[in-house]
Amino acid sequence: MTIDVAFQGILGANSEIAAKLYFANKRIKCHAVPKFENIYQKVVRGHCEYGMVPIENSLAGSIHENYDLLIKNKVWICGEHIHHVEHHLLGTKTSSLKDIKTIVSHPQALLQCAGFLRSLKRAESHPYFDTAGSAKHVKDSGDKTLAAIASKEAAAAHGLKILKRGIEDNVENYTRFFVIAKNQPKRFPKGKYKTSIVFALKNIPGALHKSLSVFALRDIDLLKIESRPIHGSPWKYLFYLDYIGHIHDEASERALGHLQELTQTFRVLGSYQIGKQLKR
Amino acid sequence: MTIDVAFQGILGANSEIAAKLYFANKRIKCHAVPKFENIYQKVVRGHCEYGMVPIENSLAGSIHENYDLLIKNKVWICGEHIHHVEHHLLGTKTSSLKDIKTIVSHPQALLQCAGFLRSLKRAESHPYFDTAGSAKHVKDSGDKTLAAIASKEAAAAHGLKILKRGIEDNVENYTRFFVIAKNQPKRFPKGKYKTSIVFALKNIPGALHKSLSVFALRDIDLLKIESRPIHGSPWKYLFYLDYIGHIHDEASERALGHLQELTQTFRVLGSYQIGKQLKR
Repeated sequence: MTIDVAFQGILGANSEIAAKLYFANKRIKCHAVPKFENIYQKVVRGHCEYGMVPIENSLAGSIHENYDLLIKNKVWICGEHIHHVEHHLLGTKTSSLKDIKTIVSHPQALLQCAGFLRSLKRAESHPYFDTAGSAKHVKDSGDKTLAAIASKEAAAAHGLKILKRGIEDNVENYTRFFVIAKNQPKRFPKGKYKTSIVFALKNIPGALHKSLSVFALRDIDLLKIESRPIHGSPWKYLFYLDYIGHIHDEASERALGHLQELTQTFRVLGSYQIGKQLKR
Repeated sequence: MTIDVAFQGILGANSEIAAKLYFANKRIKCHAVPKFENIYQKVVRGHCEYGMVPIENSLAGSIHENYDLLIKNKVWICGEHIHHVEHHLLGTKTSSLKDIKTIVSHPQALLQCAGFLRSLKRAESHPYFDTAGSAKHVKDSGDKTLAAIASKEAAAAHGLKILKRGIEDNVENYTRFFVIAKNQPKRFPKGKYKTSIVFALKNIPGALHKSLSVFALRDIDLLKIESRPIHGSPWKYLFYLDYIGHIHDEASERALGHLQELTQTFRVLGSYQIGKQLKR
């Protein structure tokens, strides 16, 4: 049986590679969609069982659009994948490094290769909407003076040559993905879990500190806190928390019960097995 | 004596209007710079006494580039200004609403006027690098079918007509600015203050909760917490905190001393009088 998985971008996008690695021992079909919100639509409408949602990059930080979309859509985070991002310089088959005059890629990728780009004195860099898209653009142009910064999979997908490998300034470059599904699974396999929740606090003194206390008092490790604005209530925030544990652990159940004494709105976004951080 | 103030953008930008309102009873000269980082350079090098730095919008959230730049540059936050953002549809002098076929503006402004844009069935919208820049673009084109979404000051600065006032979906649209200077002032005038700090925590259990406890234990009100990635240390964060109080208040001094028992790095970004939130 084939599993349908939605990702944002085009062939060779990091999201597609991440999906293939996450579901490595399953048969999957990847469905490319143009915008992040389309991933959620595909999953909510049942066109795809799963969606690959990039939530955070270890250099650029959180991807806030996806934090906002996670609460706009009724989905469940059922998995986590930590994807090691590598940047290569890609050109046409007849091109070589000394031919390159213009380099295109996503602004973040250009920023992450700033050292290498400075070393190419004669080449200009221009932003492009995504890394895999910039590879396709180079292929479509057939221009041997044009290069893209993208993955080796994008090189393969679009028939480009790798002119220079591993051009990033910092190799500790990981993107954390959430794997989303329409519903909570009926059974959770054994393993080490993380849980992600979102809440808005009541207007009580020291509310933020108290909300973290419900975890600290039970020795639950907090991994991340993220805040997003609440529309119509300037300088009030929705808080997103990740912690180690499964929602059905006793300590976790008690902490979440306690937390709801302090919150105006509260939702569990998912409990999922912790993703491994491996270099490729 | 004239005070030199740096802002990012072009004539009629919200940052320029904010500077004029913040320094309403002073004689100022505004210096437009193309990028946020240039504001800090102007201030650090002593070319401008002050810089206007947008740090957060009540609908779009934090402006992370400026959080990152605040720690890359040795500056002091000496003021806060809360700016009410209004969006108007601007066209050439001979244009009217029914002529408009294309609307340009910053993607956030387009998003914030989505309801109005949907009501204009025949008009397409296109992203532009900033709101005031989109106004200049309409003026330069002389095209009566083209309109921009920008402020009334941008209309005045670029000789455009307001075709439709107040086209935003949500009027609770404020941008919070930091006023930055090179150094801490010698004297702080009397008033109600906020303090902004940034720190990285030691690797100890429950460190985040403990770091908030140092404030809660002293009844100090936390206003905001923001996290940003630390490069080279995936999933470790710098935390930015805003709280009510002046760094030299006794409770605040004790809390910050206590906090430094828990932190690897720590810096006070500034103590500044609380900005008033007024509709224009």
